[in-house]
Amino acid sequence: MAAAAAAALQDGATAQPSKKLRVAMLIHPDMVLLDLVGPQTVFSLSVAEIHLLWKERAFVTTDVGVPLMPTTTFADCPEDLDVLFVPGGLKGSVALMQDRSVLDFLARKAETARFVTSVCTGALVLGAAGLLRGYRATSHWYVRDLLALMGATVVPERVVVDRNRITGGGVTAGIDAGLTIAAQLRGEDYAKRVQLVLEYEPKPPFDAGSPERAGEALVSDVLQRRSALIEAARVQALEASKRL
Amino acid sequence: MAAAAAAALQDGATAQPSKKLRVAMLIHPDMVLLDLVGPQTVFSLSVAEIHLLWKERAFVTTDVGVPLMPTTTFADCPEDLDVLFVPGGLKGSVALMQDRSVLDFLARKAETARFVTSVCTGALVLGAAGLLRGYRATSHWYVRDLLALMGATVVPERVVVDRNRITGGGVTAGIDAGLTIAAQLRGEDYAKRVQLVLEYEPKPPFDAGSPERAGEALVSDVLQRRSALIEAARVQALEASKRL
Repeated sequence: MAAAAAAALQDGATAQPSKKLRVAMLIHPDMVLLDLVGPQTVFSLSVAEIHLLWKERAFVTTDVGVPLMPTTTFADCPEDLDVLFVPGGLKGSVALMQDRSVLDFLARKAETARFVTSVCTGALVLGAAGLLRGYRATSHWYVRDLLALMGATVVPERVVVDRNRITGGGVTAGIDAGLTIAAQLRGEDYAKRVQLVLEYEPKPPFDAGSPERAGEALVSDVLQRRSALIEAARVQALEASKRL
Repeated sequence: MAAAAAAALQDGATAQPSKKLRVAMLIHPDMVLLDLVGPQTVFSLSVAEIHLLWKERAFVTTDVGVPLMPTTTFADCPEDLDVLFVPGGLKGSVALMQDRSVLDFLARKAETARFVTSVCTGALVLGAAGLLRGYRATSHWYVRDLLALMGATVVPERVVVDRNRITGGGVTAGIDAGLTIAAQLRGEDYAKRVQLVLEYEPKPPFDAGSPERAGEALVSDVLQRRSALIEAARVQALEASKRL
């Protein structure tokens, strides 16, 4: 549906911005595919030229086992990005927090990007690159407090907009963040049309999507199972704080 | 995050079903990637063996330009599926509605599958395979009425469960449908934990996700731009009704 819909949105009679947006989305080993595909679908329907960026053109692994091929290497990434985006995946994010080539690349591209954005634990990577110092920001609930170590003001909201930084909460927040970014770039009416095409009127069958709603037992359970990786993220956030 | 989380969910100390679920998800040319990845992520966190099915092992195109490689051909699809799932993408669904090899394959697998499921326009394909006759079902808002031509009772809800048929609305309904299916298979507590890991507490920035909320202007606009494909779907639904 969306490919044809994107074409239809482009050639429509109503007055719409005709300039193609230029969106660059980092992809990386051990990423969460849904972190990417939510906002990617929104951008695709918002008439964007989308680059999937990685160091080299080799498949990266994702949580669901679907390998992703980058379309564009860091070296070939265009200038003047409308959106620079970093998805999450805790294991992968912890690795990137220690990878100076990735952090330097993001810091350089962020200088000229119109919006610097992330979903889920991708904010940890932006933070380690020094890109959230002095900004309000969020991340997945189980690591968002770590952003404070890297100079951010942590805001426990689903999508946080502070000047040109737009960060989303865990995984599924990518759809909300994508629509928020689309509205900034294309206007609210355009974003609403994308929302309608994606039938985004969510009705979760349960009320357990945040630590406040899920209750102590489920939260403890998730935290316990994730404790090693969360601790690794904390160590890297502290390392980053010494550099920044 | 999710790969490690899935592993963590498996080796946890709490009592959880240890049997791997067997999930087979059709993929096809011109599909909408988000239709797949929403429920796929939920299933992946629900300890499932996931097969991405197509006729042969060759890349299929998706709306966002990411090619997908099937993991399993129709010929190699295992028996005794816990879940048979069909994603959407209107152009692709219209093509499948005319493809007897796909419809026959789905009808055969549905005989022994525990749950027969779809998201978005994937329900049109289930319908054309005769799998929704006498069932309550839904689909993307702009085509769901066509299900009635193929013997279904159309229910304008986000997720419709009728015996072992579970159908979701457009695109993003895949997350809600995925959690609903996971709860049937693994229990409500398990599904809630997945919801918490995915931080699925949606807060759409706008209220335009259904035709009722988006208003007449946006609805007319989307319908006008999609009219050729919707009409093609109607023709195929009528063709199917003659066969069924």
